Amino acid sequence: MEQNNLSQKDTPWHILKQLIKDGNADAIEEFTNSVSRDEMLHTLFILSQSEQKLLISYLDPAKAADLIDDIPTSYAADVLENITSDQAASIVSEMASDEQVDILQEIENDEAEAILNEMEVEEANELRTLIEFPANVAGGLMMTEFLSYPENYSVSQVIKDLTDRPDDYALYNVQYLYALDKDRKLQGVIRLRDLVFSEPNTLVKNILKKANTVFVESTQEELMDFFEEHEISACPVVDNNNRMLGVLRQSAVSSSINEKAESDHQKSQGIVNGEELRTMKTLSRSKRRLSWLSVNIILNICAASIIAMFEDTLTSVIALAIFLPIVSDMSGCSGNQSIAVSMRELTLGIARPSDMLRVWLKEISVGLINGISLGLLLGLLTWLWKDNIYLGMVVGAALALNTMIAVSIGGVVPLLLKKLEIDPAVASGPILTTITDMCGFFLVLGLATIMLPWLI
Amino acid sequence: MEQNNLSQKDTPWHILKQLIKDGNADAIEEFTNSVSRDEMLHTLFILSQSEQKLLISYLDPAKAADLIDDIPTSYAADVLENITSDQAASIVSEMASDEQVDILQEIENDEAEAILNEMEVEEANELRTLIEFPANVAGGLMMTEFLSYPENYSVSQVIKDLTDRPDDYALYNVQYLYALDKDRKLQGVIRLRDLVFSEPNTLVKNILKKANTVFVESTQEELMDFFEEHEISACPVVDNNNRMLGVLRQSAVSSSINEKAESDHQKSQGIVNGEELRTMKTLSRSKRRLSWLSVNIILNICAASIIAMFEDTLTSVIALAIFLPIVSDMSGCSGNQSIAVSMRELTLGIARPSDMLRVWLKEISVGLINGISLGLLLGLLTWLWKDNIYLGMVVGAALALNTMIAVSIGGVVPLLLKKLEIDPAVASGPILTTITDMCGFFLVLGLATIMLPWLI
Repeated sequence: MEQNNLSQKDTPWHILKQLIKDGNADAIEEFTNSVSRDEMLHTLFILSQSEQKLLISYLDPAKAADLIDDIPTSYAADVLENITSDQAASIVSEMASDEQVDILQEIENDEAEAILNEMEVEEANELRTLIEFPANVAGGLMMTEFLSYPENYSVSQVIKDLTDRPDDYALYNVQYLYALDKDRKLQGVIRLRDLVFSEPNTLVKNILKKANTVFVESTQEELMDFFEEHEISACPVVDNNNRMLGVLRQSAVSSSINEKAESDHQKSQGIVNGEELRTMKTLSRSKRRLSWLSVNIILNICAASIIAMFEDTLTSVIALAIFLPIVSDMSGCSGNQSIAVSMRELTLGIARPSDMLRVWLKEISVGLINGISLGLLLGLLTWLWKDNIYLGMVVGAALALNTMIAVSIGGVVPLLLKKLEIDPAVASGPILTTITDMCGFFLVLGLATIMLPWLI
Repeated sequence: MEQNNLSQKDTPWHILKQLIKDGNADAIEEFTNSVSRDEMLHTLFILSQSEQKLLISYLDPAKAADLIDDIPTSYAADVLENITSDQAASIVSEMASDEQVDILQEIENDEAEAILNEMEVEEANELRTLIEFPANVAGGLMMTEFLSYPENYSVSQVIKDLTDRPDDYALYNVQYLYALDKDRKLQGVIRLRDLVFSEPNTLVKNILKKANTVFVESTQEELMDFFEEHEISACPVVDNNNRMLGVLRQSAVSSSINEKAESDHQKSQGIVNGEELRTMKTLSRSKRRLSWLSVNIILNICAASIIAMFEDTLTSVIALAIFLPIVSDMSGCSGNQSIAVSMRELTLGIARPSDMLRVWLKEISVGLINGISLGLLLGLLTWLWKDNIYLGMVVGAALALNTMIAVSIGGVVPLLLKKLEIDPAVASGPILTTITDMCGFFLVLGLATIMLPWLI
């Protein structure tokens, strides 16, 4: 422990905390250049909010933008909400527009508007338009920076323009250029490789390829399909009139889908109002978690009230109280396995709401085997422990039946919720445990009431 | 229901099932070309294993490879294990080597060897070498197909060679070319854009850029850092002697990391031996799930045996039986929230095992607020319901204390397991629920025993 404390003084976060305290801007700059991204990320989240604020004020906006680009969007939004809006604006200005929109959509409305007000009017207005698109359609994921040329330009004119603007070239990470007419309607795409292989005075229109475009309102799923089908890293986004509005990068679609999957998993564990970060204020973390917990406690009390209906049976066979939590917990475990498989199949598009019957048949066949196996195991252990074969039968049968109920609910409920347009990631778990708890208590105590003469 | 049955006859999977039954290869080919990737994926997983087998035998291997490339690796492996090894070999041969290795690593050893035996000897031997690399280091993620030229070639020679092999060009998805010496040591990288802007008789060595390389044994985390730092889509993989072994695509690293995250989430819900697919055989699905459930039932019985120690108290105040599951379930919910946040922070590299104390302080502060809030709520409801303020105090205090225990365990245990090199995704949940169940039962019944005179 002693040794550990000594060595901690030399850890990067310890050093950075000291540099921030000293207000040594040059040393901070040097520090951020010398540590790996991984180390920097770890350090950033050990700092208190006020230290983060100071750190960012010491960094060059471009450097800060790089750093913030590395963090998951919801966390990055938290960092930007924490600094002044003009600082945030100068950092956001350094990002590509798809990243700008991404992060502004995560920031609270007032705060986002305050940041936009600090930016250049033209850029801000463009962003305001982009933010209006839902985050999961092409318009919300595209970037508006791209290079386009008239189709009567020659290859050498294009190359000359490109060489004259090496900076933009790097920013746009260009692999494709576009040809637009005077109404900004898309004529086609110019591939870099075609520029390589063409005579300098060839006209753009002669090397133009037909562009595979996506519609500005295409959904995330359609976009994923599109990129799976066409092996390209970016494509033009067009409106109803084939006017080109922006470029959609494949990476924007896949990272949006991954964030969705991650957020679903957090939700299923009760982190429901966006991702939690331990540097957030304690009260706000507590409030977010409590909102979910208070719904659950009500459901839990409803489920447990079943037990109150059988107080006489319980009084006669007090040992039943031991088996109530076992049966309800184990059924919960079985049901959660089914939820996990259904959620995964929903995400992948393998299962759809219309597959409910098929999914149920698959689940019940596993539920039969597992229910009987677990029921026999628990029944046998109960018999050996409490030396009453009838108690073993009651408890075993209750677990067997309740396992079948649990896998059925776990398998089918996510599909049903999807059909009803309720978020299955949030609601499946509580619905499952409430029903399996109720059924579990009812089965154990109901069967025990019937078998009461043999249990006493 | 009637109507639903009628319309289902026209759904793609219904049509495809019929085509497979008819053995109409041409129509099957046409079908697969006409439906979207999404539709095809859904259809594929509605087919029985024997129908899948027939479908793949009717498809051209390149077409089948495209289809299989779209499926998550573990599922794809399942499909390939299900067909004959020479069919599987002809499909695998159509893939790029990083995808080949990916999928062969998921297939059982015997089966993978049988597929390799059906492939060309040279290709198979190369794959055998690649498979030896762990799946999460550069060697296991790289592809061995790349284009290289001697550094004394001229730009026009390179361009001529490229134009002579448009097929390879497409396969390799080239953005970079490499210059190697006669020992295959890497001299540098040729960027496509430099070919565009150079005089035809410029020598390769004059436009060569220093390559940012990764070492063949670099880990996934190091590779992620590398790609975050250098904004390139692919980089050369070299050995100790700077010999170039392959090309690592950024997409291979990010999809490997996503599959790891997904598999962690499945594990945390009790799907532990690789992803489950509902087209798998019922017995194998059942066995996989049971392995996890049987560990849990033992832990559950241990926890519940605490209740047996207090049978006298329970007999005196039978209403306590209602609150045992409520307190243990609710603490489980609070603890799972903490696990979710810790797992996320571990994945992102924000939290490390050395941060245990810091994480605990953050958790206990939330635990205090939430524990007291939930305890007051449950205590109040209990008082109103059972008309006994002392029962309310017992139950409320037990929940408050157990919530603090639960968030502490949930926050810290994942970091501790990581330090002990035990997979936190698998073990955190069961450890949490076992301890919180035990503590919950002990607190409710222990406090009740102390307060017994006021409860009766």
